[in-house]
Amino acid sequence: MEDVIFMPLTVAIGQLNPAAGDLAGNVRKICSFVATAREGGADLIIFPDRAITGYGGVDLVDRQGVVEEELLLFEEVRGASEGISVILGSERMGSLVSEGSEGDVQAHDLFDCILNLKGVRVGVLRGELSVDEVSRYGQGLGVDLIANLVARPFSVGGRGRVMDRLAWVAMECGVGVVQVNMVGGDGGFVFNGGSSVIDPGGVVEFAAPQFVEGVFIHTIGSKTELPPSLSEIEVVYDALLIATRDYLQKNGFKRAVVGLSGGIDSSLTATICADAIGPGNVTGVSMPSQITSSESREDALLLAENLGIEFREIPITTIFNEYLRTLREEFGRRVGGVAEENLQSRIRANILMAISNRFGHLVVATGNRSESLVGYCTLYGDMAGGFAPISDVPKTMVYRLAELVNEKAGFERIPGRVILKEPSAELRVGQRDTEALPPYHVLDEILKALIDEKKSVEEVIDSGYESEIVLDVIRRVRESEFKRRQAPPGVKIVSSIKEAL
Amino acid sequence: MEDVIFMPLTVAIGQLNPAAGDLAGNVRKICSFVATAREGGADLIIFPDRAITGYGGVDLVDRQGVVEEELLLFEEVRGASEGISVILGSERMGSLVSEGSEGDVQAHDLFDCILNLKGVRVGVLRGELSVDEVSRYGQGLGVDLIANLVARPFSVGGRGRVMDRLAWVAMECGVGVVQVNMVGGDGGFVFNGGSSVIDPGGVVEFAAPQFVEGVFIHTIGSKTELPPSLSEIEVVYDALLIATRDYLQKNGFKRAVVGLSGGIDSSLTATICADAIGPGNVTGVSMPSQITSSESREDALLLAENLGIEFREIPITTIFNEYLRTLREEFGRRVGGVAEENLQSRIRANILMAISNRFGHLVVATGNRSESLVGYCTLYGDMAGGFAPISDVPKTMVYRLAELVNEKAGFERIPGRVILKEPSAELRVGQRDTEALPPYHVLDEILKALIDEKKSVEEVIDSGYESEIVLDVIRRVRESEFKRRQAPPGVKIVSSIKEAL
Repeated sequence: MEDVIFMPLTVAIGQLNPAAGDLAGNVRKICSFVATAREGGADLIIFPDRAITGYGGVDLVDRQGVVEEELLLFEEVRGASEGISVILGSERMGSLVSEGSEGDVQAHDLFDCILNLKGVRVGVLRGELSVDEVSRYGQGLGVDLIANLVARPFSVGGRGRVMDRLAWVAMECGVGVVQVNMVGGDGGFVFNGGSSVIDPGGVVEFAAPQFVEGVFIHTIGSKTELPPSLSEIEVVYDALLIATRDYLQKNGFKRAVVGLSGGIDSSLTATICADAIGPGNVTGVSMPSQITSSESREDALLLAENLGIEFREIPITTIFNEYLRTLREEFGRRVGGVAEENLQSRIRANILMAISNRFGHLVVATGNRSESLVGYCTLYGDMAGGFAPISDVPKTMVYRLAELVNEKAGFERIPGRVILKEPSAELRVGQRDTEALPPYHVLDEILKALIDEKKSVEEVIDSGYESEIVLDVIRRVRESEFKRRQAPPGVKIVSSIKEAL
Repeated sequence: MEDVIFMPLTVAIGQLNPAAGDLAGNVRKICSFVATAREGGADLIIFPDRAITGYGGVDLVDRQGVVEEELLLFEEVRGASEGISVILGSERMGSLVSEGSEGDVQAHDLFDCILNLKGVRVGVLRGELSVDEVSRYGQGLGVDLIANLVARPFSVGGRGRVMDRLAWVAMECGVGVVQVNMVGGDGGFVFNGGSSVIDPGGVVEFAAPQFVEGVFIHTIGSKTELPPSLSEIEVVYDALLIATRDYLQKNGFKRAVVGLSGGIDSSLTATICADAIGPGNVTGVSMPSQITSSESREDALLLAENLGIEFREIPITTIFNEYLRTLREEFGRRVGGVAEENLQSRIRANILMAISNRFGHLVVATGNRSESLVGYCTLYGDMAGGFAPISDVPKTMVYRLAELVNEKAGFERIPGRVILKEPSAELRVGQRDTEALPPYHVLDEILKALIDEKKSVEEVIDSGYESEIVLDVIRRVRESEFKRRQAPPGVKIVSSIKEAL
């Protein structure tokens, strides 16, 4: 094998944010990125996996048609790529390569193909690099550079593991690695981009920023200043923001409407919406009943003022009373209990849906992961909506995100009282979440052990939690599965750990 | 190879209806079936695939625990099977065999194992028989009888294909086949049973009835009278009935509540519920608004009387007016349009959910497949419910089922006017489904071509439908995907064709 040599190859990273199913639109963007890369002097542009179809881009209907359309559209890309080589990933056809006038392509055992370009052998591989295979080849891989195309769903804490693995691969094989990742929200996931170039010594020589779409040009072998690194919670906030922005945009919605209860979940959700699509495009609706405290009403209003979003207060008292009157007549007694609690939540959903139907806003649901997992939420009530930005965010992380929002703003953008008050659904006088659930820091630890770490009930009890509490949590998780089946789409943040690596 | 000889082996078919996830309960039933089979003189009892876990029996949580529990519970079965051999299928561990005192087990290439019992070599195979493998072995299979354990989701028209294939396998290899199938509703599917014994000449020598749980004993080589064969539409009705009964029972519900509009979908749904769990356990609720015709109110009442179910009329007029008043104040104008239509549907859902919350009924949703696919339904409105029995039944099949109901009853159990009237959502004065949709016989043909046969839009247009209509249908299917994502669970009838064979 030859030694690895200095390679004067200029590579463009096409950190793309495709829209699921909009193949023609995605290809228009790909072609414009190709032109930008050529003007920037790149020899080669590398796009992520599933660049043409998007991540969720397999439609219910007409699957065969999609494959044909994708191939046809790649010919358009080929036509637009004079003087530059182009690589992109396809779910159905592996790596698609337009070798350009200077390159040529040959087959390989491990890689989808080898692109020979300006004397550099680029091994093209779509999907995760297999540690086993890489180990087997080691320094005898026979390429100078790996072009790795991925579409890797973001997960909390995932980036560190990815970068460690890339460094390991580079060192194990003594070659450089360019890994290009998708960016943006698509098909229920969010992609963080952060495409990187690693040198044969395992050192990062270039990294594109996370959550930013664009063409990033880099000459292999040179060093560039890396983008500032973000804290874990900053990355989560960016992920939720991009996921929300893209969900609205890719589904044709300009405006969002959020029910504001004065609690922390709806406050954070409205903040994310305001940051994602601009405060002028967000309507916050407070819908007090006779049970709602004056503090909650004030906090909802104060939040809306701080965010600069449109604010409406639509009391549900008279509608609620009319239901109670009608049902009392029918039942021969007070409605009471859970039925009465859920009614309020469902009236609010009806009002938000009426606003959506009348004015075309997307109803953004405000539930968090902890309450969803234990079913502490109302089906067709607070669960209603077209998109649920924080539905995979544990309640304890909701608090961290709210604190981040205020820290970044330099003032209590989310009112301090919202963060400090005891959590309550306010569907009954004096109600507190802790009447039904353990404190959230305990609940989140138990859920993490049971769900994310797949520990058995016995193991969780043995690790120091009261068996009564653990058994109650697992019962709630099981009995509320029917609710989650009807939940609106959200974005995976914690739950994609397995998919991510 | 030896000739196939007459085998005096008496086999019991354990046509089991397990409950997803209730491993201990399923094993209690398995053990009682084993006892029945032994008392009936059987040498061997064969259960379907996934007998211990049920079909949907992989819980979100504690997967490792499930595998261990299943193995442990199979030891209980083994302990209860003195003097008889037992075979059952496991998703995780293939075929589990308790050979009994007379049998012994050996390995085989094609089969999970061979059970030698009273001089008969029984090849045990879990899952569908591979046509390729069977062809490869042909007459040299080296067994006398195949015991094939399946859990095959029912699909319209599937049984004929299954029986043809079994006959082909028997003749190709010159051996008998016992195929044991699951029965009952489980995990979103329904299983029709109909377990069969085929002789080496490809002739059915025994068949257990469809949709009936039980132990069926048969001596290999003898002929028994076959159960009467059912028409396609009779089988569908039975499938819906069993699926509904089992969904309620396995989820701990004794009573169902159905909104009765006076239309054919809710009339058929209420009839299925009454037949599934008894009319005394079903409540029908008519919820007229100012738009509801007197005919619709009369038809809802007449249906309830015919079925013998509890009937309530809860007018929504005052609640609807209170919403309109509140929202008009807010909007500064009439609510109008889709917002006003959907409101009525959502008020009805709220009332049904309040009854469910107050009295513990399961809300049974009434939507059909055609309207669901084109999104002609209201999210959190008529789509609301815990189970949707006809959500995979095309509208044209709804009519056939209603006619079957009346034919079987010998009178217009579903009022004739319900079947004859023009379909309408009655959310606006004079509204008719055909204002928005093509006639249902056309819509169902287009949906069949696009969805079930996966034809491209061009192919469907070329086969003789107006392009404007086809394009409108495909647009509706695509734009309503977000609604189906939040639909209640139902039972696959048409859509499981692919899974079934």
